[in-house]
Amino acid sequence: MRIAIIDTSTTRAAIISDGLREAGLDDLILIDPEGPIVAQVEAARPEVVLINLENPSRDLLEDFFAMSRALARPIAMFVDQSDAEATGAAIDAGVSAYVVDGLSKQRIKPVVDLAVRRFQAFSRLQRELDEAKNALAERGTIDRAKAILMKRRGIDEPAAYALLRGQAMRTNRRIAEIAEAIVTSDALLGDME
Amino acid sequence: MRIAIIDTSTTRAAIISDGLREAGLDDLILIDPEGPIVAQVEAARPEVVLINLENPSRDLLEDFFAMSRALARPIAMFVDQSDAEATGAAIDAGVSAYVVDGLSKQRIKPVVDLAVRRFQAFSRLQRELDEAKNALAERGTIDRAKAILMKRRGIDEPAAYALLRGQAMRTNRRIAEIAEAIVTSDALLGDME
Repeated sequence: MRIAIIDTSTTRAAIISDGLREAGLDDLILIDPEGPIVAQVEAARPEVVLINLENPSRDLLEDFFAMSRALARPIAMFVDQSDAEATGAAIDAGVSAYVVDGLSKQRIKPVVDLAVRRFQAFSRLQRELDEAKNALAERGTIDRAKAILMKRRGIDEPAAYALLRGQAMRTNRRIAEIAEAIVTSDALLGDME
Repeated sequence: MRIAIIDTSTTRAAIISDGLREAGLDDLILIDPEGPIVAQVEAARPEVVLINLENPSRDLLEDFFAMSRALARPIAMFVDQSDAEATGAAIDAGVSAYVVDGLSKQRIKPVVDLAVRRFQAFSRLQRELDEAKNALAERGTIDRAKAILMKRRGIDEPAAYALLRGQAMRTNRRIAEIAEAIVTSDALLGDME
């Protein structure tokens, strides 16, 4: 498992690296916190990102939360102190493990495990939600396309659906794509009767 | 904020209670880990459940994970040790904060904050997913009911929808409920033509 480490305090980077190596994780990539962080992380292609911020200012925290949203990877963040508001902001930003005042060598590996599993659980739920919303939107488009066909060609609903399905099969596209084309075309061409 | 505390080691319950009281949280209810835990927690009606397990056996962990699923509340769990598998099981069981080897007075309050926020974020996503799935199922039922009406009464789709909608308004029920009744009735009465 490749782990990218971002540490604003080089004196503490050793604790993290030691903890990971002792747990058998030695594919570690150190990211320069002064450089362009997102670009460096994307180039490193890690499976987990570990961030250690010593006494971060509110602005620095906000920067890292914004970055967390862009990364779309399991992120474990260690901070020395936090309040309820910053904790909430961390979770809203998708930080998978947010550890306040708990940096010790023995705890690094469990926190990495936790970040990976929590990221997976959340991603699974998010993906299911995206699929369900997409399916709902497609149902709406297909209904509108059927209504257009029924009116224009004076056919019933099963016949309209058969038309959509037949065209989808002939052109090797999805029924929702054909329906989308009909709805778009109808909006542009207007009522031609 | 009322907090229920379950602690298998009474010697450590003091650390937790002290940490919470110092953070201004003093509405604490101690749950007897030997008694029926779910019933005690339900009776206490806490906003957060804090569980501290000292060197838990695999079986004891499983028991608490099963309980976590039943509680449907933010749960923060402190354990002395864990492996990747137990960590995964904790997350799958909905444990909102799972802290390995990190029990200290100062960390209790941040962990409680974290558990509450993570539970809210996850619940929001879960609720959105349930609503989307429900809407999809209802769309399917309404489509089937419309098809039954169109065939039985020889009407077109807008007329079938108007029938459903009119009946829903007259009887003060949702369109999906009327559709469900039609689909059920059709399944039982069969084809009467």
